[in-house]
Formats: sequence, C-alpha cells, structure tokens
Amino acid sequence: MTLKLYRILGLTLAALCSLPSLKAQTIQAYIKQNDKKLMEEYIRFLSIPNVSTDTVNIRKNAVFIKDMMTSRGIKAELLTGTTPEVTPAVFGEIKTPGANKTIGFYAHYDGQPVNPKQWYAGVEPFKPVLITGAFENGGKIIGPYKSGDAVNPDWRILGRGSADDKAGVMAIINAYDALVKTGQRLNANIKFLFEGEEEVGSIHLDEVFKQHKAKLQADCWIIIDAPRHASGKKTIVYGVRGDVNMALTVYGAKRPLHSGNYGNWAPNPALKLAQLLASMKDEQGKVLVKGFYDDVTPLTASEKKALAQIPNQDEILKKELGVNTPEVAGRSIVESIMQPTLNINGLHSANVGPMASNVIPTKAEAVLDLRLVKGNDHKKQAEKVIAHIKSKGFQVLDREPTEEDRSKHPNLIKVEVEHGYNAQRTPMDLPIAKSIQTAVQSTTKEPLVLIPSMGGSLPLYLFEEILNTKVVTVPIVNYDNNQHAENENVKIQYLWEGIETIAAIMQLK
Amino acid sequence: MTLKLYRILGLTLAALCSLPSLKAQTIQAYIKQNDKKLMEEYIRFLSIPNVSTDTVNIRKNAVFIKDMMTSRGIKAELLTGTTPEVTPAVFGEIKTPGANKTIGFYAHYDGQPVNPKQWYAGVEPFKPVLITGAFENGGKIIGPYKSGDAVNPDWRILGRGSADDKAGVMAIINAYDALVKTGQRLNANIKFLFEGEEEVGSIHLDEVFKQHKAKLQADCWIIIDAPRHASGKKTIVYGVRGDVNMALTVYGAKRPLHSGNYGNWAPNPALKLAQLLASMKDEQGKVLVKGFYDDVTPLTASEKKALAQIPNQDEILKKELGVNTPEVAGRSIVESIMQPTLNINGLHSANVGPMASNVIPTKAEAVLDLRLVKGNDHKKQAEKVIAHIKSKGFQVLDREPTEEDRSKHPNLIKVEVEHGYNAQRTPMDLPIAKSIQTAVQSTTKEPLVLIPSMGGSLPLYLFEEILNTKVVTVPIVNYDNNQHAENENVKIQYLWEGIETIAAIMQLK
Repeated sequence: MTLKLYRILGLTLAALCSLPSLKAQTIQAYIKQNDKKLMEEYIRFLSIPNVSTDTVNIRKNAVFIKDMMTSRGIKAELLTGTTPEVTPAVFGEIKTPGANKTIGFYAHYDGQPVNPKQWYAGVEPFKPVLITGAFENGGKIIGPYKSGDAVNPDWRILGRGSADDKAGVMAIINAYDALVKTGQRLNANIKFLFEGEEEVGSIHLDEVFKQHKAKLQADCWIIIDAPRHASGKKTIVYGVRGDVNMALTVYGAKRPLHSGNYGNWAPNPALKLAQLLASMKDEQGKVLVKGFYDDVTPLTASEKKALAQIPNQDEILKKELGVNTPEVAGRSIVESIMQPTLNINGLHSANVGPMASNVIPTKAEAVLDLRLVKGNDHKKQAEKVIAHIKSKGFQVLDREPTEEDRSKHPNLIKVEVEHGYNAQRTPMDLPIAKSIQTAVQSTTKEPLVLIPSMGGSLPLYLFEEILNTKVVTVPIVNYDNNQHAENENVKIQYLWEGIETIAAIMQLK
Repeated sequence: MTLKLYRILGLTLAALCSLPSLKAQTIQAYIKQNDKKLMEEYIRFLSIPNVSTDTVNIRKNAVFIKDMMTSRGIKAELLTGTTPEVTPAVFGEIKTPGANKTIGFYAHYDGQPVNPKQWYAGVEPFKPVLITGAFENGGKIIGPYKSGDAVNPDWRILGRGSADDKAGVMAIINAYDALVKTGQRLNANIKFLFEGEEEVGSIHLDEVFKQHKAKLQADCWIIIDAPRHASGKKTIVYGVRGDVNMALTVYGAKRPLHSGNYGNWAPNPALKLAQLLASMKDEQGKVLVKGFYDDVTPLTASEKKALAQIPNQDEILKKELGVNTPEVAGRSIVESIMQPTLNINGLHSANVGPMASNVIPTKAEAVLDLRLVKGNDHKKQAEKVIAHIKSKGFQVLDREPTEEDRSKHPNLIKVEVEHGYNAQRTPMDLPIAKSIQTAVQSTTKEPLVLIPSMGGSLPLYLFEEILNTKVVTVPIVNYDNNQHAENENVKIQYLWEGIETIAAIMQLK
C-alpha cells in the first residue's frame, strides 16, 4: 500500500511506523509453531509449589529454571549470599561478540501464600488448570492441559505463580530461545536473574547483589513483573512503590469472656482496633496519620505528561470490579498510585460465621500495608504510623504484654514492622529508557502506556544503590490476574506477547 | 456453744442463723461418699458432643439424660414441638403427696460451637480432662478421669459443656437423687426440664411450651445456669438480659485486588467496617446508636439496694483478667450489666498472620451481640442499629449484592439479624422469691449475692409469657469457667455445692 492509501484508510504515519516489525512477526510465528511445547513446559513449572517460605519446593523451582536455561544453551548457576538461609537466585549470561551494552532481565519465581479453601471449588493452586476466562466474567474450568492439546490463546492458566511471576521467568527464557531458534542476532550482552524471595520482601537481594556485584553489572536491568495496563496496551513502567507491612495486635482480657456476663465492662479489643483503624483514614480516603504525605517527591514534567496520556480505564474497572465510587472520589487510579497508601490487608478477631460465639475476644489483629512513593523512607513511614497509634493512647509493644503491662496501661498493642524497602523511579528521558520504549513499540501497532511508577512494589532501589545500574519494568501479564490472591491466572495470549516484547528488547542496540 | 459464746467469737445472730443446715450437711456427706460415681457418670455425659447444631449427637445427649433420670426413679420423657426439627427437651416429674406447690428445675444440655485449634494444646473439647486449676493461673493438665480415682474437689473438669450447662443437668438430677438416697422428704412437686437448643437462642422453646403447657405448669421454675458471683458466694439472680445477634458483611470489589496496583483507589471493606463499628460506640464505652438506651425500665428500690450490696469484685477481676480500665471507666460490672450492650463477637477480613497477603479484601465481616435489659424489644433494638448503619451511608441488604446494587451504591452491607428474645426480671419481693432465698441461705454461712439481673441471656420471658409462671435463676458454676469459649471448665467443688443448693430448694415448703 502507498502512503496515500494509508491516509485514505485513516492511518497516520505515526501509526504506520508503529506496526509490528518484521522481527516481531518472526517471533510470533515461532511461538505459534511451538505453543504446545511452551505450554507443556510451563504447566510443569507451575506444578512445583513456590510459596517463598516453602524452602524445599522453592529450591526445586530454582533447579527447574536452571535446567530450562541450560537446555537452551544459557550458562546458568545458582547465586547465594553470605548467609546460608538465602534462597538461591538463578543467574545466567550470554556474551555477544562486539556488544557495547549489557541488558539484564529479572523476574521472580516465588509466589504468595495460598489458602486452597479460598480458591475456586476443586482447584488446587499448584495443579494448574485451563479456564475459558476470568471467573468473575463467567469463565469456566476446562481442565488440566494435556501434552499435545491444541492451545487457544484466549484461554487462561489458573494457578499460583501463573501471572506473578513465573510468567516473567518463562517469557524471558523463551524470548532468548526464540531469537536463537529463528536465527536472529543479538546486539547486546544479555544477563538473566531469577529471584526466589520477592514475595517475602526480597530479604536477601541486597546480600546477593553485594556478593555478586561484578557479575550483575549491566547498563539496565529490565524487570519483567506486574500486570500490563488495564487497557490491555503494552506498558513500560519507570518506577515502583516501596512497601512496608505492619502487623497490629490489640489486647483485651487475658481470657475470652462471655459477652453477657462481661459485656459493657470488659474492654473489647475488636472495637479498639476498629476505632484505631478508623482514626487512620477518613471516609474520603485521606490518611490522617500526621505527616503521611510530607516526604513525597513531586512529579517531573515528563512524568505528569505520561500520566495524562495513560488511557483512563476507571469506568471500565469500576464496572468490572463492581465498584461504585473509588476510595478517593474523583481521583483516577493512575493518580492514586502516585501517592503513598495505608491499606488494611486483613482483620481477625475471634470468629464470625458458623463458628461465631458470644464472647468478648482476647485480641484483635490487623495487617497494614504501607505503599511508599519516591521520597518516602520505609522506616520513617512506619514510625509515623506508630506515632499515630501512640497518639491514640496505646502503649506500643514489640511482644505479647506482660502482667505488668496489663496492670499499667489501658490500651495495649503489639506492633510488628516487617522488612520494608523504598520506592524507585528512573527518569523517562534517559537514552536507555528511550531505546527500550522504541524496542517495545516495534512489537505493537497500539500506542504504549508509559507509567512513571506502578502501584506495586519491588525492591528496585537495590539495583540503583548497590549495582549502580538503571532499572525499568516491562509488565507482560493481564491486569485481571488475581495476583496475590486466590484464583491467580494468566491469559495465554499475554504470555506469547510477553515473549515477543522481551525478544525485541534483547535486540536493542 | 451458747449465744453468749457466739457473741464473744464475734458472730452475730444473723450469721448463726445462716450456718449450713443439718439437711445440707447430710447432702454434703452423701456427695463425699459418692463422688467417684458422680464423677464417672459426669465424664461420660461430657464425652457426648453437644454442639446445638450437631443433631445426631445432641439427641444422644437427650437419651443419656433420660436414662440418668429413669435409673433414679424419675419418670422421664422427650418433649418435642409441633415441627419435626425441634431438638427434644427432656422432661420429668415427681409428684409429692400432699404438696401444695410445684417447683420446676431447668437446665440446658447443648453447648456453644468448638474450634479445637483454639483449645489448650492436645485437649479435645469432648474428651474431658482434669486440670489442677485455671490455665491463666498456672493450672496444669492432670489427665482424663479414670473410674475409681480419688476426686479432689479443688480440681476442675475441662471440656465443652462442663460448666455451661451440663453442670446444671447433673446437679439437678443428683440433688433429687441425694434427697431420696438420704431418706429426706420432699414438700413440693418437682418438675425437670432440660433443653437442647439454648445456645442457638432456644428457637423452639416457645413451641415446646405451647405444646406442653399443662405439663409444664409450676409455681416457679428455677433456672440452673450461668456462673455464681465472682466473689464465689452463692448467688440468686432474678432476671436475665435478652439477646439478639447481627451478622454484618461489608463489600469491596468483586475480586481480591493487589494492594499495590489498586491501593488508594479500590475501596477497602475492612476500613469501611472499622469506620462503621467505630461509629457505633465511643471510647468511653457509650453506644452512639440513636435511642439505644431509651427503652430501659428503671430499677426498683429493692433492685437498687441489692445491687449496692453485691460485693465489688472489680479490682480482683481486673487483676485476674489483665484489664487496666473497664470499658466504661468508673462503672462497676454489676452496674454495667443493667444496661443494654453492643459487643463485637468477631471480626474477619481476608487473612492475618502467616496467611496475610498484600490484598484489598473483597469483604469484611463482623458479628455483633446486642444484650437487652427489661424494657428493650429485641426487634426494635436491632432496627436501631440498622437505622444507624443506614445513617452512615450504607445500603442495607439481606443478601449478597447484585451487579445492580454494586453499580448504584457506594457502600453495601449485608445485615442478618438472628433470632433474638427479650429480657426478663422477677420482682425480688415476691413470697416465692423470698422462700428460694431462705432455702439457698440454709446451705451456706456466707451471705448470698442477690442479683436483679444477670449479664447473660436465657429466653426466660417465655416462662412468664407462655407458661404464666415465675422464674428465678440459681447459678452454680465458678465464674472463671471460660463458658462460650475455648477451655471451658468447671471446678468440682462448685458441682458439689450446686447439688446441695438445689436439694435445699427442692425441700422448700
């Protein structure tokens, strides 16, 4: 077709330039020819339980990945730290003759804890099954994938880790393999790093980085994790939020009390916890903890522009999620995630449902999740919450209360601050950042979604602080993947497109 | 000893009159001779699971009780209602020649649900064991009671129902038996009624009463349930609180959401529930629901006097329970229970502890327990709470929300009001009430504790409304019995004293 014809068809030159490149089409064809083999291996990978704390199985995953790499000609090894408890990260490297650039690819192979009872009836988190679509949209279970079955890219794979983040591992390794098998050349050195402790806060990643600093040098590390934008468009993310969790336990009487005999007299820890949590955030979604928003680094002009261009999916999301009004009415989701959060992850006190009984509970627990943005310090942010708790008349303990604590203080709370880390944000205008953008754009005719910072958290500050390299995130999975929850799933088409995207970045000059 | 000598010893005439009567001493001796037999049978009774909803086992309990009665010469039968789902109540009757009075004795044989995981390690709720004392005071497990073992009355029996309220059943039946075996005469007709649905709100007691109204006639029914006063003194209670439970479920998005990707945007149902609960009661323990205290019937002069004479155990209780300040600072426990309550029985949303994950939960649940005093109507009280919930901007549903509910309303809550009933209070000055007081006083040298209304709930209004009889409660078990919770236990000495107390009332003229 001539340019004129394109104009007649209403296509602009910009759109023409962003048609998938010939290289991307080659990779697509390769995937189509090999989809059964890719599926079969991925199902085997997902069948190995990967809860971060399940040390026996988590190591089986590491070995599986190493074997995946070795069988594709990637020299791989397990990296540990200086202490024996480090779950090994899997490292691999491809040296390209004449390359003047090194690009690293990171994903994590561990997953969040699972409570099988919460999953769709009959589904076990580590026995992946195919489903026709998301359950909330009427998706049905097809059954396990059997070797040799035809693969429908509209289907999804249901299982822990399917999206977060074994998808990253499989897409990175297979992107390299696809390039090799289709005879395409690399321009850069490629490094691979697959972590097994991300879901417990990457507690030893600093140790691994310090121990293997030279090995892990790169111009930029590409993080393959998290979901693509809800519009379905390919996405690049230049930063992540930091995160710190806090576990709160408010104490009542030493033993459970009959709510009739002691009601109105014995303090109720569930009420005290409710009052405390209610004091932390108002009904307009504003966190009331003093100084909570004080340290936030303002957005740059490029970041503001990128935010404004992100397709607004809020109405679609509201409908799909059954939400009438967001937490902060009138603020879009992309604006929301540029702020620090205070989220209640879970609440528990005595029993509800059939197990409920008429008691005044002995304790009430909540887990808080504080997401941090550029400028926040995780320790300082947790301290602000602790100061707030103290301001509400609580005696803050780091252990169960003693008899003396109980006799001295009307309000007792145990606060456990878990391992946290800070946010990270790479300037969008850096040459390497722009090259990545060009590579990803070469695989799709749709405009990209460029996000200054994702809502989720990864300890990416470590790449900057210890390795002194840049870091950019390229998410590949569907946004409605239930990551971190029951019924986690990945749409197969997104896996294939993920492979294409990564292959394009691997060819970056 | 002469009266003079008593005076020298500092004993007043009143105290002299209140020494245990000869009859009571006879019963004491009988129990001592038969304690092993009593224990052995009670342990067998406690070994039959008695959760109200466990229909198979609950009927085994009824049959066991009937056999206990029959073997002691009490004609017993199972009473049902007009509908087939009624758990049978066990009824028995002893006609005394020449008696001009009928006294009925009520207890219930069903128990609260059990969560074995919450019980002391290794203990199963329906495999009773002996313990040396309350766990919170360093009590240790001795082991199961073996037939023929010596019985230490300072020990406790640990198991569901041991205190609430199989203790009542065993004490009533054995009190009658002790009178017969020691050759003492009865003055009144005696009736027995043992219910199996008390812990689910006596949902068919009205049906049973209506069906067997003539059979259940008595001058007064004595309720053997609930704990003696915390001072350990023998106790008579003239009323009970009513009760109604409400289950609340606040809804968030349709699926669990990653707290990083959606935090600050997706509404958090755990926060909304916390805000709602916090709005119901202030930090001084005052319920903020409009009109919550409006219908309360004021106390009479006798009731006020009785309240003032109840030994104040608050400082001891505070120490024992590890409570620094009661919910309403400066108000005693006996004053507290003369008011209606709003208690949080349980809270639940997603997970805490090792299962916690970084999600925005889909729902948050609470169970509320509203205790009612004389004057309150259970339906009206629940309506006041519902009106409060509506005033906080919630759309109140009686089912899960539909798509339409979700699209229309920002705040959705399901409210399930469970079966409730009203309070009951018998005037303390009635002749029958005074006779009971004299009988109980004859078994102890300590002054009695007379309580206008207990904190707990029993559907005693049914005795007044359907049977048109008076009703008075005589609690027999230790107050620190963990009833309704894990590690429920009864002190053996209290069982023995319960038998003595009931035997004395059975001899009332």
